[in-house]
Amino acid sequence: MSPTSEYVVGVDLGGTNILVGTMAPDGTTPIAVRTEPTLAAEGSDAVVARMCRLVDEVIADTCAATGATRAQIRGVGVGAPGPLDRERGIIHVAPNLGWHDLPLRDLMTERLGLPATLENDANCATLGEWWIGAARGARHVVGITIGTGIGGGLILNGRLFHGASDVAGELGHATIDSTGRRCKCGNYGCLEAYASGPAIAERAREALAGGEASRITALVDGDLARVTAAIVYEASQEGDEIAREVVRETARFLGTGVANILNTYNPEVVVLAGGVAQAGEALFGPLRAEVRRRAFKPAVDACRIVPGALGGNAGAVGAIASFLAQTRL
Amino acid sequence: MSPTSEYVVGVDLGGTNILVGTMAPDGTTPIAVRTEPTLAAEGSDAVVARMCRLVDEVIADTCAATGATRAQIRGVGVGAPGPLDRERGIIHVAPNLGWHDLPLRDLMTERLGLPATLENDANCATLGEWWIGAARGARHVVGITIGTGIGGGLILNGRLFHGASDVAGELGHATIDSTGRRCKCGNYGCLEAYASGPAIAERAREALAGGEASRITALVDGDLARVTAAIVYEASQEGDEIAREVVRETARFLGTGVANILNTYNPEVVVLAGGVAQAGEALFGPLRAEVRRRAFKPAVDACRIVPGALGGNAGAVGAIASFLAQTRL
Repeated sequence: MSPTSEYVVGVDLGGTNILVGTMAPDGTTPIAVRTEPTLAAEGSDAVVARMCRLVDEVIADTCAATGATRAQIRGVGVGAPGPLDRERGIIHVAPNLGWHDLPLRDLMTERLGLPATLENDANCATLGEWWIGAARGARHVVGITIGTGIGGGLILNGRLFHGASDVAGELGHATIDSTGRRCKCGNYGCLEAYASGPAIAERAREALAGGEASRITALVDGDLARVTAAIVYEASQEGDEIAREVVRETARFLGTGVANILNTYNPEVVVLAGGVAQAGEALFGPLRAEVRRRAFKPAVDACRIVPGALGGNAGAVGAIASFLAQTRL
Repeated sequence: MSPTSEYVVGVDLGGTNILVGTMAPDGTTPIAVRTEPTLAAEGSDAVVARMCRLVDEVIADTCAATGATRAQIRGVGVGAPGPLDRERGIIHVAPNLGWHDLPLRDLMTERLGLPATLENDANCATLGEWWIGAARGARHVVGITIGTGIGGGLILNGRLFHGASDVAGELGHATIDSTGRRCKCGNYGCLEAYASGPAIAERAREALAGGEASRITALVDGDLARVTAAIVYEASQEGDEIAREVVRETARFLGTGVANILNTYNPEVVVLAGGVAQAGEALFGPLRAEVRRRAFKPAVDACRIVPGALGGNAGAVGAIASFLAQTRL
């Protein structure tokens, strides 16, 4: 590694964890990654201080590993939950963090003495998978992130599409059942109300309410409050029938949402980023079948539906890509 | 009008009518418009011959009105139902016309001796409203056309967005109720199955099945088979309560679809093109209210939801705009 190389730091700020890493601007050199719990309850000052400390540590790791100096760090890209104002670098509302109108970008720049950019976290994950992951090289890409909520990002004509006010890509809040389950956003029948992590766990608990034997119950020592989507996927992979039915249902809900995406955006790749990749073919098989049933054939034929390749790093990698895109001359 | 001006002919090919008109390339000079029934049952040869004769007549009208010669006609833009292949100028499937893999663009060029382009009809209507209609000057526009089916067009970053295989914008075939009404496309719960012209008429017939008195029944002399969306709108404007409830329901279905559009595309304008404009505030009032209930506030605040300004001419105007865009050097 040449000591004259430059590096960019990426920050993925989640409701549960902060993940920070560095890469070279060509996307080929992941140097250092650190992660810590967000501890949002401590308030925004404490969380911002923690993020900045992690950035400083990752910069130190990078310099130690490469012989670079801090002057070779170009800046910091931050991916954060929205709605946010990219131009002004402000997070409008982040319910899981309890933040309102926080000028996060300028706070980071002041404390670190480095240029910073802000971008929606699901947009970052999509951008990361497009830059060096499962959607590399495609012209039109839709990314879906499934966690506590369901987010999305749109890459159209090779560029992230933000819409008129940075809301574009809120795929978790497209209605798939107009009189269906109430969503946290206030709407009824949003995809997120059926297929987010907590929604998957909730549907598993409902399926187990009758007291049937299931591997799910064993995995949580009988404490159904501890059921998570990851545990449902694990039980499904071990062949548990109730878990498999919950996964098949999840695939049908997600398949409906993805079919809508195919009929309206007609992308080349739909990438499901994050932990959902671990669900494997038990999810992706019936999901693709549901999409084939619902979407137009020319749209189905044009599109790959794939799990992300970057796992939990997609957001930080995409935050770096977003920094590069926003600071391009 | 200078005799050195140039003109472009636009053709809007519908399942029921063909409409042909000319304009100058700056969009300011509508010269001549002619329309005739499509008579699709006569087969594709007869329909193509009819389109070409109408084009020739409109060119003659234009030359007579302006003193131009045929050499000043730059070409013909055709808007047609899809799915179609724009690059190759082929209509893959047009169910209402009974056409399969028809090379319409080249057939027109051969018969007319003029360059021609092909574009999806709903894309054309959107393009027309964006060029000189209700969405003029906006950067991100979603158009929805409501007729026998529901179509859509997306203008993103000031350009029509086609997706990977010309399917983008099939907004009528986005699911709003995953276990709902069967759609002609084979899917369940598509917006089109609730809010297309025939779906509105069908819901009115269902509402009248109990035999209640209604202005709708009077307007069709008791023959419910003759109920159309236009008659429902007319009865609603005359204060008929059953018609008003059907219109309110229609507004809720369309509002759900439009809210999905706001949360995913975040456009500046949603324009409902075609005959639906005649429904007026009885439709647009509750539609906007449903959108406010369902979509994110920053997306709602950024977006106007308006009827088209070009009425039945939107498709032909947009076909002219599409010709200009496709033949731009």
